[in-house]
Amino acid sequence: MSTLDKLAELFARFPGIGPRQSKRFVYYLLAAPIGVREELSRLVLALKKMVNVCSECQRFFTSNGNQQTLCSTCADPNRDNTLLMIVEKDVDLENIERAGAWSGKYFVLGGTIPILEKNPHERVRSKQIQKLIENRGKNNGLKEVVLALSLTSEGENTAEFLQSSLAPLSTAYGFKLSTLGRGLSTGSELEYSDPDTIRNALKNRQ
Amino acid sequence: MSTLDKLAELFARFPGIGPRQSKRFVYYLLAAPIGVREELSRLVLALKKMVNVCSECQRFFTSNGNQQTLCSTCADPNRDNTLLMIVEKDVDLENIERAGAWSGKYFVLGGTIPILEKNPHERVRSKQIQKLIENRGKNNGLKEVVLALSLTSEGENTAEFLQSSLAPLSTAYGFKLSTLGRGLSTGSELEYSDPDTIRNALKNRQ
Amino acid sequence: MSTLDKLAELFARFPGIGPRQSKRFVYYLLAAPIGVREELSRLVLALKKMVNVCSECQRFFTSNGNQQTLCSTCADPNRDNTLLMIVEKDVDLENIERAGAWSGKYFVLGGTIPILEKNPHERVRSKQIQKLIENRGKNNGLKEVVLALSLTSEGENTAEFLQSSLAPLSTAYGFKLSTLGRGLSTGSELEYSDPDTIRNALKNRQ
Amino acid sequence: MSTLDKLAELFARFPGIGPRQSKRFVYYLLAAPIGVREELSRLVLALKKMVNVCSECQRFFTSNGNQQTLCSTCADPNRDNTLLMIVEKDVDLENIERAGAWSGKYFVLGGTIPILEKNPHERVRSKQIQKLIENRGKNNGLKEVVLALSLTSEGENTAEFLQSSLAPLSTAYGFKLSTLGRGLSTGSELEYSDPDTIRNALKNRQ
Repeated sequence: MSTLDKLAELFARFPGIGPRQSKRFVYYLLAAPIGVREELSRLVLALKKMVNVCSECQRFFTSNGNQQTLCSTCADPNRDNTLLMIVEKDVDLENIERAGAWSGKYFVLGGTIPILEKNPHERVRSKQIQKLIENRGKNNGLKEVVLALSLTSEGENTAEFLQSSLAPLSTAYGFKLSTLGRGLSTGSELEYSDPDTIRNALKNRQ
Repeated sequence: MSTLDKLAELFARFPGIGPRQSKRFVYYLLAAPIGVREELSRLVLALKKMVNVCSECQRFFTSNGNQQTLCSTCADPNRDNTLLMIVEKDVDLENIERAGAWSGKYFVLGGTIPILEKNPHERVRSKQIQKLIENRGKNNGLKEVVLALSLTSEGENTAEFLQSSLAPLSTAYGFKLSTLGRGLSTGSELEYSDPDTIRNALKNRQ
Repeated sequence: MSTLDKLAELFARFPGIGPRQSKRFVYYLLAAPIGVREELSRLVLALKKMVNVCSECQRFFTSNGNQQTLCSTCADPNRDNTLLMIVEKDVDLENIERAGAWSGKYFVLGGTIPILEKNPHERVRSKQIQKLIENRGKNNGLKEVVLALSLTSEGENTAEFLQSSLAPLSTAYGFKLSTLGRGLSTGSELEYSDPDTIRNALKNRQ
Repeated sequence: MSTLDKLAELFARFPGIGPRQSKRFVYYLLAAPIGVREELSRLVLALKKMVNVCSECQRFFTSNGNQQTLCSTCADPNRDNTLLMIVEKDVDLENIERAGAWSGKYFVLGGTIPILEKNPHERVRSKQIQKLIENRGKNNGLKEVVLALSLTSEGENTAEFLQSSLAPLSTAYGFKLSTLGRGLSTGSELEYSDPDTIRNALKNRQ
């Protein structure tokens, strides 16, 4: 296989990219100034060296050269340490931060658990979250853990898994185990809402 | 203007129909058996004669010839008379019924109130709903009125209008005035949720 | 079944209309002024009385009360009688007229012939077009018949059927039997063109 | 700016990629095995070293290590050297090859000329194509040059520019200067065809 085809094949594995667009990426790079290719090559290689995983929330963050182990959110003394939100992935965390409505901490699961999965512990950072919650529970009065998973079938399956595996800790350390509110999302019309959403909107009316 | 063009123009006023599709409707009718045209003509004309407006909830319903004034839902002795849901239009009511999660009664407002509207009372059946609530409040212990408006800007404006105009009745007769739960709708992903929905999902977590 | 449901069912048979939109049509009519319903009812019923089928091209047209048998195009002495274009349906004819590039006459087939159809003569006005071409051929020097069918599988099947059934007449009366040019349509990009279109664009380069 | 953000910014310049998807690319790479990042980095850097530009048609091709200067198509003795097709970019050439209807050679312009562009010669390889045609014209009896540009406004502008700049050569060396056939593309319906396409389909009927 030629260099062009090999590179196209690598791009075709990128999220949301098909074989046709991956080809266009290759031609774009061929036509781009050499500086662009050099910087792309360098940054891709340096990615893991310059990027750390936060020892607390497990998100990726760029370290400033010194031996940081905490991301800016986990290192922030103003964030409420008694509130913890569990999300699937980094972009979910970023989107929630953008909404500006959460003053607690986060934990990134690193994935979701497919239905009927036999080894859920290999899919998500379930042991790490248990350990983190135990530590927090012992030390500083954890008040609430929010399961902030997507309302897709995999997301709901993951939430159920966490609910049952974290329930004993919730009892032991006396924190609330909650999920995000369900109902009508902003902009939605009743005429076109699905039955499940209507049922939740009714159940959670206030 | 020709008959063809006049008819096309009438169809072009139908909801969601442009000039091109309205033309196709006319040609469809021209090619259809005469029985179809005759029945369409007859039903369109008979629409208001055979269709009543329910004296309670104001929805349209087909009467069986005798002097009915109540639709099947309002006439149903098993529906809970102490619960009332206010919706914008008939199709909203039908969609909520399809979800099968409401055992109370309904009231159809007949529209929404645009922002900055000077005469909101002319846009919706606001006096009728006040009167209905007063009667219910006096007689049979109204427990809750749910404002089930769409989360569009007009829908939210209408909900605010109703909230302030029904607040005195709520105090006087002791019923709860509620709105549908807001949050993540079924199937939605956190990565793509808008900030407002995320804020509501957080606020209404449970 | 109620009047509402019966009417919704009739609208659901309209081209491109599903059960949900047909319901909205009914509610639109219920809320519309009585004048709209009366005119719609009247026009639908009068459709065939006030609309004639042109004895030449078979399209629908609105007669002015007197005993017209020809549509305005067929009655126009400035249209070239030696050129004939065969189209599937009225809207195709209208769209071609809008392009303003045809000075000849038309004939509306009234349909297309599905692949493997056993009785093609019952699907389209094949006998009428043969008779029309024979008359024209005998009388006034027919120069060309253009088969202007869509490039869908049914359209192409219909064109093939006409090509073989009109070939003997073409030989007998010495007119050209042509089809519309195939190739790149305006706005299309080579990168996204299908192989068949590229082959035609190459074959028909000029 | 952090490494994550710099890399996301580079990806956001890729064709068809917005800021959100470029972020997902970065997270995809962070989660990918180190081997994937290393190979991507290496291939991107090696791209120009292992990829040549064909000295004839100007397309990119992967050389096998030895000193090739011609791509496989230009080196193929079975391709007809008297036919030349001018295309905008590599992917256009590939799509035409896929259709399997061209036995001649190609030339890749490397771009299109925007309307009102003052220096068209800097936008496309216009001097190279002139030189190539002159050489071919002198040596081996060039019979036809096909301008295979997209039917977008820039593509048509480019075709006009080439038509006037190549006309003297066409006269001098006696080759035909042609463009791709225009008309209905496969699958298109007359009802929805634009006026320009209908006019071309009529003009190019056969």
